[in-house]
Amino acid sequence: MPALLLAFAFIMDAGAAYSQPAQTDDTLYRQINARIKQMTLEEKVGMLHANSSFTSGGISRLGIPELTMSDGPHGVRMEHGRDWRTDNDHVDDSATYLPTGVCLASTWNPALGYAYGAVLGSEANARGKDVILGPGINIIRSPLNGRNFEYQSEDPYLVSRMAVGYIKGVQDQDVSACVKHFLANNQETERGRVNVIMSERALREIYLPGFKAAVTEGGVYSVMGAYNKFRGEWCTENRYLVNDILKGEFKFKGLLMSDWGAVHNTQEALWNGTDLEMGTDLMGRAYDKFFLGDTVISLVRKGMIDEKLVDEKVRRILYVMYRIHKFGGRKPGAFSTKDHFATARKVAEEGIVLLKNDHLLPLKASDIKKLAVIGANAVRLQSEGGGSSQVRTRYEITLLDGLKNLAGNAVDISYSPGYAIVKNAGIDQELIDSAVAAARRADVVVFAGGWTHGYNNYSWTDNAFDAEGTDKPDMTLPFGQDQLIAAVLKANPRTVVVMMGGGPVDMTAWVEKAPAVIQAWYPGSEGGNALAEILFGVVNPSGKLPMTFPRRLAESPAHALGQFPGDSVNVHYTDDIFVGYRYFDTWKIRPQFAFGHGLSYTTFGYSDMQVTAGKQGATVGVTVSNTGRVAGAEVVQVYVKENVSELRRPEKELKGFVKVFLRPGESRKVTISLNRQSFEYYNDLKNRWVLEPGAFTILCGSASDDIRITKVVRIN
Amino acid sequence: MPALLLAFAFIMDAGAAYSQPAQTDDTLYRQINARIKQMTLEEKVGMLHANSSFTSGGISRLGIPELTMSDGPHGVRMEHGRDWRTDNDHVDDSATYLPTGVCLASTWNPALGYAYGAVLGSEANARGKDVILGPGINIIRSPLNGRNFEYQSEDPYLVSRMAVGYIKGVQDQDVSACVKHFLANNQETERGRVNVIMSERALREIYLPGFKAAVTEGGVYSVMGAYNKFRGEWCTENRYLVNDILKGEFKFKGLLMSDWGAVHNTQEALWNGTDLEMGTDLMGRAYDKFFLGDTVISLVRKGMIDEKLVDEKVRRILYVMYRIHKFGGRKPGAFSTKDHFATARKVAEEGIVLLKNDHLLPLKASDIKKLAVIGANAVRLQSEGGGSSQVRTRYEITLLDGLKNLAGNAVDISYSPGYAIVKNAGIDQELIDSAVAAARRADVVVFAGGWTHGYNNYSWTDNAFDAEGTDKPDMTLPFGQDQLIAAVLKANPRTVVVMMGGGPVDMTAWVEKAPAVIQAWYPGSEGGNALAEILFGVVNPSGKLPMTFPRRLAESPAHALGQFPGDSVNVHYTDDIFVGYRYFDTWKIRPQFAFGHGLSYTTFGYSDMQVTAGKQGATVGVTVSNTGRVAGAEVVQVYVKENVSELRRPEKELKGFVKVFLRPGESRKVTISLNRQSFEYYNDLKNRWVLEPGAFTILCGSASDDIRITKVVRIN
Repeated sequence: MPALLLAFAFIMDAGAAYSQPAQTDDTLYRQINARIKQMTLEEKVGMLHANSSFTSGGISRLGIPELTMSDGPHGVRMEHGRDWRTDNDHVDDSATYLPTGVCLASTWNPALGYAYGAVLGSEANARGKDVILGPGINIIRSPLNGRNFEYQSEDPYLVSRMAVGYIKGVQDQDVSACVKHFLANNQETERGRVNVIMSERALREIYLPGFKAAVTEGGVYSVMGAYNKFRGEWCTENRYLVNDILKGEFKFKGLLMSDWGAVHNTQEALWNGTDLEMGTDLMGRAYDKFFLGDTVISLVRKGMIDEKLVDEKVRRILYVMYRIHKFGGRKPGAFSTKDHFATARKVAEEGIVLLKNDHLLPLKASDIKKLAVIGANAVRLQSEGGGSSQVRTRYEITLLDGLKNLAGNAVDISYSPGYAIVKNAGIDQELIDSAVAAARRADVVVFAGGWTHGYNNYSWTDNAFDAEGTDKPDMTLPFGQDQLIAAVLKANPRTVVVMMGGGPVDMTAWVEKAPAVIQAWYPGSEGGNALAEILFGVVNPSGKLPMTFPRRLAESPAHALGQFPGDSVNVHYTDDIFVGYRYFDTWKIRPQFAFGHGLSYTTFGYSDMQVTAGKQGATVGVTVSNTGRVAGAEVVQVYVKENVSELRRPEKELKGFVKVFLRPGESRKVTISLNRQSFEYYNDLKNRWVLEPGAFTILCGSASDDIRITKVVRIN
Repeated sequence: MPALLLAFAFIMDAGAAYSQPAQTDDTLYRQINARIKQMTLEEKVGMLHANSSFTSGGISRLGIPELTMSDGPHGVRMEHGRDWRTDNDHVDDSATYLPTGVCLASTWNPALGYAYGAVLGSEANARGKDVILGPGINIIRSPLNGRNFEYQSEDPYLVSRMAVGYIKGVQDQDVSACVKHFLANNQETERGRVNVIMSERALREIYLPGFKAAVTEGGVYSVMGAYNKFRGEWCTENRYLVNDILKGEFKFKGLLMSDWGAVHNTQEALWNGTDLEMGTDLMGRAYDKFFLGDTVISLVRKGMIDEKLVDEKVRRILYVMYRIHKFGGRKPGAFSTKDHFATARKVAEEGIVLLKNDHLLPLKASDIKKLAVIGANAVRLQSEGGGSSQVRTRYEITLLDGLKNLAGNAVDISYSPGYAIVKNAGIDQELIDSAVAAARRADVVVFAGGWTHGYNNYSWTDNAFDAEGTDKPDMTLPFGQDQLIAAVLKANPRTVVVMMGGGPVDMTAWVEKAPAVIQAWYPGSEGGNALAEILFGVVNPSGKLPMTFPRRLAESPAHALGQFPGDSVNVHYTDDIFVGYRYFDTWKIRPQFAFGHGLSYTTFGYSDMQVTAGKQGATVGVTVSNTGRVAGAEVVQVYVKENVSELRRPEKELKGFVKVFLRPGESRKVTISLNRQSFEYYNDLKNRWVLEPGAFTILCGSASDDIRITKVVRIN
């Protein structure tokens, strides 16, 4: 395990070594302004909008190239050509398919975030892309959101740490990351028009911090606006979000682009910070007729819009081009390399979460003669589904592939689908009977089920549970899986349940009877290999849940306190700051599996906790020991609770974590710094962040519901 | 004339003499907080919403009275009782009916604003009201807005000067003014749901300054939110407008109340600064079921809302009560006194505008045997119309009354309606023929026409041109008046046209042929007397237009550049900062009558202009002389033009004015100070006010299109 960490340290250094000598902003702006002076108004406006499906206009007369973009957050998307064709089979667009966002977040390992970003950046660069449209970092507010699989977490601190690593990884490859979707795309239902209404406190404490970190720490060059409205204004043309917060408070210097077709008004877009209008001519408008097209020219000519407003947008676009060395000195990229697939595997190995284990795992090949693999997700290819994040990949190892790779020689492995992924399909008794028979014959069963993406690129919403453009109807397993799992468990109690998907399902029908449950997310090209390694103990699982798994949907806060998905016009986030574990802890509701939860094949002890309060916050020291018999990694989680606050605060909040790899018997003292922000909250009455001097409890543990050791500290 | 000015100086002093020793805010907050500590949650919440048509809840157990409100901006409204009854005939509610807002603004005399406010405050006090719902200060953006008659001007500087005087006048009488409607109620069409979208520059330069002055200079205690949305959020629950700007930037300490029924969501209202929800139970909800009623109690009990948020609202309500001496020491009011009616008359005398005069005016009684008064508005009572600003008054002198009062003994005065105020009535040839016959028989004709209010309280939109809840369909005179006026002018060219109404009408059908045109607005209880005095030269007119009168509707900026009234969902103010003369001057379009225009029976000369630039701005000195044969008043107007600016600015902008009363042959040097703000504009690219060092032209004159003398000054 320690070797793993070193590998990524190496990648980070390698990234740094390639970098060109950084130019100061002043130097860049001098060059940029000189270029703008040479441009006609028409040429400038040509840069403000798409000129093909994934490019925006350049100026060949002046040597300014087009800007080229690609989806998406977990792999460079297949080529769709300038006009959204799909017959690009002559192009080698088979990329590395990385585990999706939730799986990356489950690693709780920011160095892996960097490595992941570096793969994406390098492949985008090799494919001639300037901007890769990721990471997606919207808060996971409800289990039903169709895009949760692309996002990261319910917790803004965890989101921030992972996003910063990812962005630096991408951008060190001379490609711009594009953090999205700014802001509050927390559902797909009516995403094109729903108006999100939330308190300023929820905005500041929950929904903004990831974007703030992306800009102020990650230095991201591009941001994509969301389709939805926020407080009544389209996000992409939202003065408060874009001008005041993003470009004002956060001092974002890069470009704000629209999602495809998300601009609605020329003047709003001009005034309120939209720099680049994307979309394709499939939407029935010639590119010149985009909102940021010819209309801009006529408004400037009429004196209604100052040309300087146009210049400012061009300046930001050129700034990104310079920063990614578009005008020379760009480092080379690499495409679908062995190293890239190795990174995909490492992310899967660290991101897959062992939720429950009553002494069944790890499996021992020597104890097993017959292994029954049951469940359609054991053979399902997931890479090309899900919407814009689809990836055509060189290969995708399914769970069945992975088990055969690892244990196929030693063990007799059978496969039985158990259920069929067919639209609106209910229970298929024939498939269940056949699966039960296979289970009875086997020594051990590995069941692979859960959610899936729609399969066909152009019918994303068909069978789409984790998909752009649609939300899940509920949290119940589809295709009769509950009945299937119960029947298999009854036939053979030695069954491991492996769940795939972007988040929790209602497991109450069978979870008490299942001896072992694994959350595998969508684990990427190498996912089947990583799963097999975990099942057989070649890899000791170290993933931790980045979101709470509630027992039932009705017990999750967006549904218990808030609205989801709203009334199609508005959605009021009346759950406010009580998102995820902030709700479960404060309301004292026991979830199925808590935020931060994840088991290991070893055990960890916590001792010698010290907290030293200083001027800028506090330092937490704690000794962690591997008290079991195999090497493993622990995520040491530090939560902060304000003992008495003026306004109600959540029971506790994550403010620090570190992942430590320990050999059996090894102890290590870890140190976690808490800054001023770790103790503050946003006071709605005062309209600002406040630090209330007084007693705070620092809670240190292995999960939000597995706190091992606490200390009270006074902060002044 | 000089006597007039002295009279108002006296009233201002009188106000000051009554004032209680001012308590500091700290002292008040100590008392307020002590009171809040004694309250139960239920009692607090009872104060946050209406408990009858025009009161909000008190706490009798703790000696906290109800807060009592009344419309409206130009007179204390008739009593409607606790439950909106109209059978309150036993109450003496016959108040002074002051000229409406546009007429006050036309005086360009802030001291009259004070006097006007003092009448309102004194009468409200005498009638037991704590808050008088005025002034209405929304910008006059289109001639069609039904409430223009209640508002002031198209120019934010003029609005500010008049509002500050008005508010101080009211509040010196121990009654809270309530400035409204915050913000952007610039049309009545779809006012209950339309979403106003404007640039930040338009917000800052045009639509906000009046409210800013009301708070920061006028010290207004109450503000009423508008019905409409602004950038997608209801104005009354609009975080940016209320929390960030009003209470944040402007440091407003008083209460923000809703218009009647304008709250839409409990949590939005709680979060976003609404302090008091008004409305009547006619809307089908018991008062406890208001958004700020029982729901608040349950949200606090559930822990979703902090009780401190409720306390903050109660604190603001109590703050207003203390400031108006509700708990003791309140000065007495007075009701419908002779002095009050005298003030109404003075405002009319100074607010009526002489638009055109080809040597016909003033009339000489000795030259006239027969005077024909033509037009239904010569006898129309206007006080009880127009919507919530309706006033039941002791008396209302019509134009016909006024002429008879002044000249009835010397001149034979006939009346002929000429047209009928009947819904959708077109040309009534019989009435025209009869009017033409009267005109032929007369030496001089006074025609009185224009717009009117709906007559019946409960069908405001019937014949309502200047009325709450409806906009004018167009700018054309209704009831066949164009044909009537043309026929009368043909029959007798010695015809004075007197227009009543809240703003411009299309006069192109007859204005070239009319030798004299007067804009009388709605001139209040004494309006007919004031008009007669002006027609016969007893009073020399000194009113100046507070808005541009375009020739045709299509030539006004909201219609030429912008949208009016929008698409029922949104209205985009794409006319931006080019409202009123800012458009006509910059686009070089000649209006019918320009902003600031208004004739006198004497003439004024301008000489010896000096401009001295200093650290804080500049001082303008100019000598004004009465070069004619009668005493009169001139409004010296100072406009500023930035010679070269980074962003486009309007051709010129009003930044100072002073009204001077001069005897024939008298000269006076007037001094006008221009502060830093006079030279700044709001730079959209930098998101802040900027002063660009450089050359500015200071233009000094009698109207925006009658600049007499200019100087260039360098500001650094």
